[in-house]
Amino acid sequence: MLSIALPKGSLEEQTLALFAQADLEVKKGIREYNPTIKDPRIDKVKILRPQEIPLYVQEGYFDLGISGLDCINESGADVVEVCDMPYGKRGAGTLKLVIAVANSSSIEKPEDIQQGSRVSTEFPNITRQYFKKLGIPVKIFYSYGATEAKIPELMDVVVDLIETGQTLIRNQLKIVGTILESSTKLIANKKSWENQEKRKAIEEIKTLLLGVIEARGRVLLSMNVPASKLDDVVKTLPAMKNPTVSKLYNAEYLEVVTVVDKKDVNILLPKLKEKGAEDILEIEISKIVR
Amino acid sequence: MLSIALPKGSLEEQTLALFAQADLEVKKGIREYNPTIKDPRIDKVKILRPQEIPLYVQEGYFDLGISGLDCINESGADVVEVCDMPYGKRGAGTLKLVIAVANSSSIEKPEDIQQGSRVSTEFPNITRQYFKKLGIPVKIFYSYGATEAKIPELMDVVVDLIETGQTLIRNQLKIVGTILESSTKLIANKKSWENQEKRKAIEEIKTLLLGVIEARGRVLLSMNVPASKLDDVVKTLPAMKNPTVSKLYNAEYLEVVTVVDKKDVNILLPKLKEKGAEDILEIEISKIVR
Amino acid sequence: MLSIALPKGSLEEQTLALFAQADLEVKKGIREYNPTIKDPRIDKVKILRPQEIPLYVQEGYFDLGISGLDCINESGADVVEVCDMPYGKRGAGTLKLVIAVANSSSIEKPEDIQQGSRVSTEFPNITRQYFKKLGIPVKIFYSYGATEAKIPELMDVVVDLIETGQTLIRNQLKIVGTILESSTKLIANKKSWENQEKRKAIEEIKTLLLGVIEARGRVLLSMNVPASKLDDVVKTLPAMKNPTVSKLYNAEYLEVVTVVDKKDVNILLPKLKEKGAEDILEIEISKIVR
Amino acid sequence: MLSIALPKGSLEEQTLALFAQADLEVKKGIREYNPTIKDPRIDKVKILRPQEIPLYVQEGYFDLGISGLDCINESGADVVEVCDMPYGKRGAGTLKLVIAVANSSSIEKPEDIQQGSRVSTEFPNITRQYFKKLGIPVKIFYSYGATEAKIPELMDVVVDLIETGQTLIRNQLKIVGTILESSTKLIANKKSWENQEKRKAIEEIKTLLLGVIEARGRVLLSMNVPASKLDDVVKTLPAMKNPTVSKLYNAEYLEVVTVVDKKDVNILLPKLKEKGAEDILEIEISKIVR
Amino acid sequence: MLSIALPKGSLEEQTLALFAQADLEVKKGIREYNPTIKDPRIDKVKILRPQEIPLYVQEGYFDLGISGLDCINESGADVVEVCDMPYGKRGAGTLKLVIAVANSSSIEKPEDIQQGSRVSTEFPNITRQYFKKLGIPVKIFYSYGATEAKIPELMDVVVDLIETGQTLIRNQLKIVGTILESSTKLIANKKSWENQEKRKAIEEIKTLLLGVIEARGRVLLSMNVPASKLDDVVKTLPAMKNPTVSKLYNAEYLEVVTVVDKKDVNILLPKLKEKGAEDILEIEISKIVR
Amino acid sequence: MLSIALPKGSLEEQTLALFAQADLEVKKGIREYNPTIKDPRIDKVKILRPQEIPLYVQEGYFDLGISGLDCINESGADVVEVCDMPYGKRGAGTLKLVIAVANSSSIEKPEDIQQGSRVSTEFPNITRQYFKKLGIPVKIFYSYGATEAKIPELMDVVVDLIETGQTLIRNQLKIVGTILESSTKLIANKKSWENQEKRKAIEEIKTLLLGVIEARGRVLLSMNVPASKLDDVVKTLPAMKNPTVSKLYNAEYLEVVTVVDKKDVNILLPKLKEKGAEDILEIEISKIVR
Repeated sequence: MLSIALPKGSLEEQTLALFAQADLEVKKGIREYNPTIKDPRIDKVKILRPQEIPLYVQEGYFDLGISGLDCINESGADVVEVCDMPYGKRGAGTLKLVIAVANSSSIEKPEDIQQGSRVSTEFPNITRQYFKKLGIPVKIFYSYGATEAKIPELMDVVVDLIETGQTLIRNQLKIVGTILESSTKLIANKKSWENQEKRKAIEEIKTLLLGVIEARGRVLLSMNVPASKLDDVVKTLPAMKNPTVSKLYNAEYLEVVTVVDKKDVNILLPKLKEKGAEDILEIEISKIVR
Repeated sequence: MLSIALPKGSLEEQTLALFAQADLEVKKGIREYNPTIKDPRIDKVKILRPQEIPLYVQEGYFDLGISGLDCINESGADVVEVCDMPYGKRGAGTLKLVIAVANSSSIEKPEDIQQGSRVSTEFPNITRQYFKKLGIPVKIFYSYGATEAKIPELMDVVVDLIETGQTLIRNQLKIVGTILESSTKLIANKKSWENQEKRKAIEEIKTLLLGVIEARGRVLLSMNVPASKLDDVVKTLPAMKNPTVSKLYNAEYLEVVTVVDKKDVNILLPKLKEKGAEDILEIEISKIVR
Repeated sequence: MLSIALPKGSLEEQTLALFAQADLEVKKGIREYNPTIKDPRIDKVKILRPQEIPLYVQEGYFDLGISGLDCINESGADVVEVCDMPYGKRGAGTLKLVIAVANSSSIEKPEDIQQGSRVSTEFPNITRQYFKKLGIPVKIFYSYGATEAKIPELMDVVVDLIETGQTLIRNQLKIVGTILESSTKLIANKKSWENQEKRKAIEEIKTLLLGVIEARGRVLLSMNVPASKLDDVVKTLPAMKNPTVSKLYNAEYLEVVTVVDKKDVNILLPKLKEKGAEDILEIEISKIVR
Repeated sequence: MLSIALPKGSLEEQTLALFAQADLEVKKGIREYNPTIKDPRIDKVKILRPQEIPLYVQEGYFDLGISGLDCINESGADVVEVCDMPYGKRGAGTLKLVIAVANSSSIEKPEDIQQGSRVSTEFPNITRQYFKKLGIPVKIFYSYGATEAKIPELMDVVVDLIETGQTLIRNQLKIVGTILESSTKLIANKKSWENQEKRKAIEEIKTLLLGVIEARGRVLLSMNVPASKLDDVVKTLPAMKNPTVSKLYNAEYLEVVTVVDKKDVNILLPKLKEKGAEDILEIEISKIVR
Repeated sequence: MLSIALPKGSLEEQTLALFAQADLEVKKGIREYNPTIKDPRIDKVKILRPQEIPLYVQEGYFDLGISGLDCINESGADVVEVCDMPYGKRGAGTLKLVIAVANSSSIEKPEDIQQGSRVSTEFPNITRQYFKKLGIPVKIFYSYGATEAKIPELMDVVVDLIETGQTLIRNQLKIVGTILESSTKLIANKKSWENQEKRKAIEEIKTLLLGVIEARGRVLLSMNVPASKLDDVVKTLPAMKNPTVSKLYNAEYLEVVTVVDKKDVNILLPKLKEKGAEDILEIEISKIVR
Repeated sequence: MLSIALPKGSLEEQTLALFAQADLEVKKGIREYNPTIKDPRIDKVKILRPQEIPLYVQEGYFDLGISGLDCINESGADVVEVCDMPYGKRGAGTLKLVIAVANSSSIEKPEDIQQGSRVSTEFPNITRQYFKKLGIPVKIFYSYGATEAKIPELMDVVVDLIETGQTLIRNQLKIVGTILESSTKLIANKKSWENQEKRKAIEEIKTLLLGVIEARGRVLLSMNVPASKLDDVVKTLPAMKNPTVSKLYNAEYLEVVTVVDKKDVNILLPKLKEKGAEDILEIEISKIVR
């Protein structure tokens, strides 16, 4: 019923892993770019460059697509952003489209860039709009890659997508501005989204995918707590949602179970122990659906 | 007490992984093919070609063995099939022994094969019996491998073991019949099986191995359900077995825990959410013993 | 607040994995040996040869360090052994510093070694002390590696650190004595340990690290037990600690949950089934804090 | 004295190998894309996408560059083609820019393409000019890669660069026309080429590079020939150039040495033997300068 | 004109390398096992298990084939042995079919084997004939591989093909007899061999292949020798064939060039220097045709 | 007759390659560190840490050894340096033992180092002697590796062996002095060297090894030269040694053959062409014995 376009390239491996964990395994078949997903809601899958996906979703070639905000904006496509999909090559996959110049340059902020500067970028549309709004006319050169290598000999400024910025540092560039914070998006064709049945299917796919992504950053904690210390322990837990408490059979202990953010565990575990929790177990979760 | 023969070759890696997960780790030692398992029920382990295992188990060289149904039938060995062991290189490991001919051939079913046809196969005994029963005398050639490559220049028909059939398709062959559906079996020597003590040990080994295999296709779902929606949610769950329901301390919620098939999760999760289940967690299971 | 020295080399990969699982991920940054850990208790991390760590911790260059007992003793450093950290390249990581001679030698115990023998070792200080106590004067040669290869042509005796001893066997050596059983230790500087605030932080780090290590050898078992069989099942479980028992809603079953040693599971599971436990699930644990 | 731009990407490895064999080794240094060549004629080297090189050479950022004819034409840059450099990922590196459609399409030649067809290509400029000249207005879409995957669902026609065409075949496309035969070119800036000193240096670099390329397709044959058979043998050799003949000391034999095309050797060797050549040796050549 | 069957498996890589060096490159095409060789004498190539090749050549499915003597004899095929092809996985590729028993066995020669012994082998026909001629009736079991692992538990004797015998040693077996010394053979169909035109083509293919094999074990030595020392130097050279001697222009030196066995070079070079040869150069040869 | 110790570790792969090219292939056998060389002059081979080899050669455990000058000096062993062996991991293998400090330090030359500075090094003996001679008392710490990582937190100065110095640069250190230029040496035991027969064998081994090393940096050039241009061409060639000139049969051309340094070829080839040389061929040499 739904057709879906998945991104080829740097996000591909992560996307296939995400879909497999969401029980929507993408199986490669006879034709290389036309895999299948065995799910009653999905009848066509294609793996395409993320730069091209927004336009194809706008045109209705696909109901659903996955692409980065950077590609969506660059393409100018008119699509529905169903939700943010915070996954990527490393962790949550947030990228920044930044303005960088040589370390040795006197430029410190975008406003310092001289008019007529040569700017190399893989995002000429976004860059053009940005400098237009800024009121600084520049010469924009389309970059076929390795943009960071062109300063200072060939170019004055680069507008480049970065994850950690290490590549810029290694090439002795400094960041003087950020044009866009980009992350992976689930996008839908406008008509598909207005179709009741399709929207229900899209929402269900989204539930499965986000169920995996959310679970990646969380763990289950289970602990035994003497009745007298229950309040203290429960107060120590993050407030988000009440923990599940059950009374143990034939004992003065209560079992407290809760889901917490992985990033808090290093502080939380010693504190729980201090407050009287015993036999604290941490268990991995593979999906969470709130 | 038990001696066991494990299959070398395409199943080897999966078999060693299965035994390790079943807490029966196979440790390679000084002599390459004579590993050990640290378990009081097992005193000899050997890794051998699966084609040879059925005969050795029949002869009593081993109490237990793992081999494919294809090899058991081809060998004609008289052994006890303790249970099916649905694991393999990819997923459940079901293979088919099929009859294939050139795409361009006019043959559409086994009965169309002309007498005197040249048939290449790694399973001459099964093939001979099959064509005898069919009443078509053919010339059978033992194949040392790459059977699919011999059509149409060298052979008219191949009888070949396939997993997905991709190799046949790539070599422009078509399947016109299936002789056997094969899967991995745990087999025992007849006398060992009649020995009370040995049979108990075999059953326990089987319990551990199947405990792992069953867990691979299942996940644990845990969810909180408002009392008023319990019936609706429970009815949505697969009927197999009652879920575990416990009342939460000081709350109007019940905790529902159940084990479901992985292959149903993509449909089940959105439905549970719709029916009112909250905070649904999916957790991996490493063994299930019913 | 704390500075910590981690071992480079054979333990490095395992150490980084351990810290990551303990939610103390070690991130490599711009300077290769100066990574960071994003934790409010740790402000400096350095990866150094384990032989040098004890001395640096003694000198107060670091509050905390991880090193093997063999290196600590060889260095003679005066540090606090906070706790044993039973992890290593394979499993619990216990190593032995053994005395070995040629298979063909008539030496059977350390006392048989003749005075004046040439002894090759990477641990000259420990070796010197050992033979001094034994009262046999020997010539000690510092070995730069491959110690086992030097017998019988170049050396008479080797004192070498082994994990399984396979390397000695392959080189046709036999073990005639053990000088030291070594394992990985968490060590602290004496002054840091006496500082209240630092000691609390060290204890918390230890809790997280040991929480991971302990969880590696354990699994969670959850099972449903008919009320009538509860006693039998509970008696079958390892005595260590009472299992968590909860009454199921609307049923004659109790849910029994417990943590057991992985190495007992192969025996325990079949027995539990025999005693009446049903739907036994085994689940991996990623941390245990008692 | 000369600055040179080398192609990053699919030609990179081959280019670096070629320069190394030409004794112009490209050494990677501190800055990733700014390597060096230790040669008195070359003072700057940069590795850049081949699509960008022609324009930079035209602009005078570099005296010399290596790029494909496809990129040169697509860029429209005005540069001097110094010579063809027949090397590539496999062998001589000739590529074709072809027009392809679905196997099942009725289109058999470019003229059959309907106006308004959607055309996907990484070469929009060349494609636009081609269809303009052909008089068929089409909609051209810029392709970010995997162009061949877009037919028939997304596009009607692709204009794609191929080496063997296997990728098209695997994706069930057929070629209906060729727009361009492309190979690797050594290109120079116009002003640099007019500068006497620079042109001499360029010619010398060309001599070294072509010396390697030519040698790759040739071998040295050396053989002993009885005086009476010299004419027969010499006539058998390819006419290109006279072989080197020398009289052996104290013998009735002459030594004949010549360079022949590798692709002729399979036919030539047996014929030479037949004609009376003895002790024919084939020796690899690493450079040839005519 | 000729069809040729090449061996799949352990010899495959070496065979393809040999053909490529002989300027008869085997190119993999669309169908995996049906490659092509661009040579006017060869119109069909197929890669098949070496065990099956002799029979197919006998049947005339192929004019030419490459297989081991072990496979030829085991198959009992009636074919023409065109020549020995001394190449293999390592060096000259000579294998032995040996009889081996447990190290601890009292058997020292084939005659010591008791009648009724269980013999495992991948060569049942050769083995049957051997023991028949020896007059010892034994039970022969077809082995599907890892033959050496079956002693002593499952079998009493193995008949196995070895290259170095290391595998037998590692499995604690000893060799008590050799049934066959096997090497790679170029074989031809009898009718093809009697056909004049085909035989000429076969001889030419053989010339090219042996030209490569011979060159692998030889090197070219070129040296300058003062006239007065020519005799001494020439006498030092292997007697096989007269070296090529040429008088240098304007000098008292003669240039002596000869081809020698690689295995003699370590002794020959210092001796030539001692005898007065100067500037001795060793150069690799890629083909030799005598 | 000779026993020889070869270096394990960073030089090992290159050493084994060198010996193989010198027709002295080192074959690994049953015992890992006791390989063999099939040569009548060598009866024992052992692979050992280069730090230990000089002492063992001094003690007469080996007649010959290969080690670096740095190890020889550090060990203080009294051995004969037979010759320099300019090979290594990359190219000629020259290493430097340098003094380095933090980039930010004010130290610019060794004399600036303050007394009492902490110095980390793997070469404590050489370092001690150096600073003694310099008259600056320092505290020397033995380094087990990663010496460069210890500045500035743990150490003030490092004395480290470098090839390119990149590691120091990456760790933000600067070199302020060089203690030793080290290269690989062939060393002999003093008594072995005085023994006539052994010295002859050593000289022959040296001839073979240096024959390979010298050939690596040279190529053979062969060219045809019109008689009238012979002088011009010959004058262009490096003066080292007269080229081999031979008159061609029936032609006005002379063949000029010479061996030149690889590093000169980039300049020489274009010049030879300019002077009138034709058909210049460059050929690899595998050994040169002057």
